[in-house]
Amino acid sequence: MIKTMKIGDYREYQRVITQADVEQFGTVSGDLNPAHFDEAYTQKTIFKRPIVHGMLVGSLFSKIFGMEFPGEGTIYCSQNLIFLKPVYPGVMLRVKVTIKSINLEKNRVVFTTEIFNQEDQCALTGEAMLMPRKEKQDG
Amino acid sequence: MIKTMKIGDYREYQRVITQADVEQFGTVSGDLNPAHFDEAYTQKTIFKRPIVHGMLVGSLFSKIFGMEFPGEGTIYCSQNLIFLKPVYPGVMLRVKVTIKSINLEKNRVVFTTEIFNQEDQCALTGEAMLMPRKEKQDG
Repeated sequence: MIKTMKIGDYREYQRVITQADVEQFGTVSGDLNPAHFDEAYTQKTIFKRPIVHGMLVGSLFSKIFGMEFPGEGTIYCSQNLIFLKPVYPGVMLRVKVTIKSINLEKNRVVFTTEIFNQEDQCALTGEAMLMPRKEKQDG
Repeated sequence: MIKTMKIGDYREYQRVITQADVEQFGTVSGDLNPAHFDEAYTQKTIFKRPIVHGMLVGSLFSKIFGMEFPGEGTIYCSQNLIFLKPVYPGVMLRVKVTIKSINLEKNRVVFTTEIFNQEDQCALTGEAMLMPRKEKQDG
């Protein structure tokens, strides 16, 4: 798998996070902070409206890594996330991962991981390190 | 808020992630990779059983930060996550955040963020940078 990868290779998809997704994530993560749920409360915050949990936005790369690129059998070694802008429910997001470096010997691939909002501004950036599944022919 | 914080201050709680939580997180994140769901498939992987999504484990700090410490009004600036060991559903986890450094002038607090499994092994480590809500008396 890793032998067919090149620096600059990327995958992306689009996704809208709904308020229902935010509620589901609040339940499963345990974070029921009113910043994500309470319209009246958020009018007094700098964000003015409920925002999506940062960690839900940061969880959108996992679908690409686990299911598509590198795909099944990939091991997630690390992920860092820098939250640059608030993400609001109902907005079309672009989720993009791009190969930054490849270490063939150690079977590690570093990806730049980015989320863009509907104005094409980068709302979240970071990097992930992954171990693609080792094929027998990879030696 | 930040003026009352000290390096070494920590908060922790315990949490079991169930297979139902994993299914809910799979739906909301879009990652339906069989490593998290398919018992028969996972017997052929190095983990032998379905594992919890790394990003779900990494989402457990958000509850403390958003609801307790620093609590309401906190802004999440960044989070990095290093996945050290697989986490299995049904296991009692300890979720811990500890203040590593404080920058009063910039209103930034860095936390060490850790998840321990039932053998008290660190399964996930990393750091988060947060901006606690600025109280008027903070100047």
